[in-house]
Amino acid sequence: MSAGKTRNEIIKAADQLIYLNGYEHTSFATIANVVKISRGNFYYHFKTKDQILNAVIEQRKTNTRSMIRQWEQQHTKPAERIKCYIKIILQNWPKIKQHGCPVGTLCNEMTKLSHPSQKQARGIFTIFRKWLRDQFRLLGHEEQADQLAMHVLSWSQGVATMASTFKAQQFAENEVDQMCRWLDELTTGKSI
Amino acid sequence: MSAGKTRNEIIKAADQLIYLNGYEHTSFATIANVVKISRGNFYYHFKTKDQILNAVIEQRKTNTRSMIRQWEQQHTKPAERIKCYIKIILQNWPKIKQHGCPVGTLCNEMTKLSHPSQKQARGIFTIFRKWLRDQFRLLGHEEQADQLAMHVLSWSQGVATMASTFKAQQFAENEVDQMCRWLDELTTGKSI
Repeated sequence: MSAGKTRNEIIKAADQLIYLNGYEHTSFATIANVVKISRGNFYYHFKTKDQILNAVIEQRKTNTRSMIRQWEQQHTKPAERIKCYIKIILQNWPKIKQHGCPVGTLCNEMTKLSHPSQKQARGIFTIFRKWLRDQFRLLGHEEQADQLAMHVLSWSQGVATMASTFKAQQFAENEVDQMCRWLDELTTGKSI
Repeated sequence: MSAGKTRNEIIKAADQLIYLNGYEHTSFATIANVVKISRGNFYYHFKTKDQILNAVIEQRKTNTRSMIRQWEQQHTKPAERIKCYIKIILQNWPKIKQHGCPVGTLCNEMTKLSHPSQKQARGIFTIFRKWLRDQFRLLGHEEQADQLAMHVLSWSQGVATMASTFKAQQFAENEVDQMCRWLDELTTGKSI
């Protein structure tokens, strides 16, 4: 395996383990076990668990940007694009039911641990936040754009926490419907 | 120190440490260090970390019930009582800013770890959920009572996650205002 490929394998394994079990629960050794490489080879790429975490966060940011680009290609109307974000929870329901929202749970854990990577982690939310803000601006809500973006992020986060805690798919579906209706009401009468 | 008092001290210390740093991060040894008792004395009360966790959850349930009783004594109108719940986030803002919502972050961690105490932990939410449901019933929303209760819990959870992630007090204040207005609109025209 080439050095670049090994590095990517480590990041991929760490990303999964951190999502499934949390950062604190994921040890250097567990990641190395999954990737099946020697300790020496592992240390060549990453010296500390925090370094791996930062690489995982960077990878998640790249994936987030690429997901957003897809939504933009699929939909020209801002409201339809925002609905792509709103519906992620249902599309990823089997995973969210078991492990929560990957961004929200990571940020919660970083906050809890007062971890130095707290800012980097919330940077994933910031990508969504800025993009949602742009969509609300396109919808004519210039002044409230950031507040509306945060409202959507926050609404989704709450649904992810409560739906995964109570394993309540129906609740998640109801809330997603409600969010879409709220968005439709917000856009009604506005020129897009 | 009497046996009962020592047990309570252990639970109190564990409760704080779990809230501040998370369950996974909190070791048997850290708790013992805070309480300053011998290993033997510690094991007399608790054999495993999971046993301590369950005692902490029971304690939190007791505290939750007592908080709810206070709200009921302070306010006779159901809408005012619900607002007590909605405003917790602002009252506890300095702590929530640093460590998130104690119930939501614990439930998130239990979900993430597929921990056997997952059900017990969500039992704290269930106390709030049932109580909020009762208040919505008193407000005349019989059929939707549970959905409304979950909506309030979920809304608050989202705000706690986003506000603590971005250290955004103003955002939390705006959302609390919005929740209170939403509740006022819901109760308008209904006989209480």
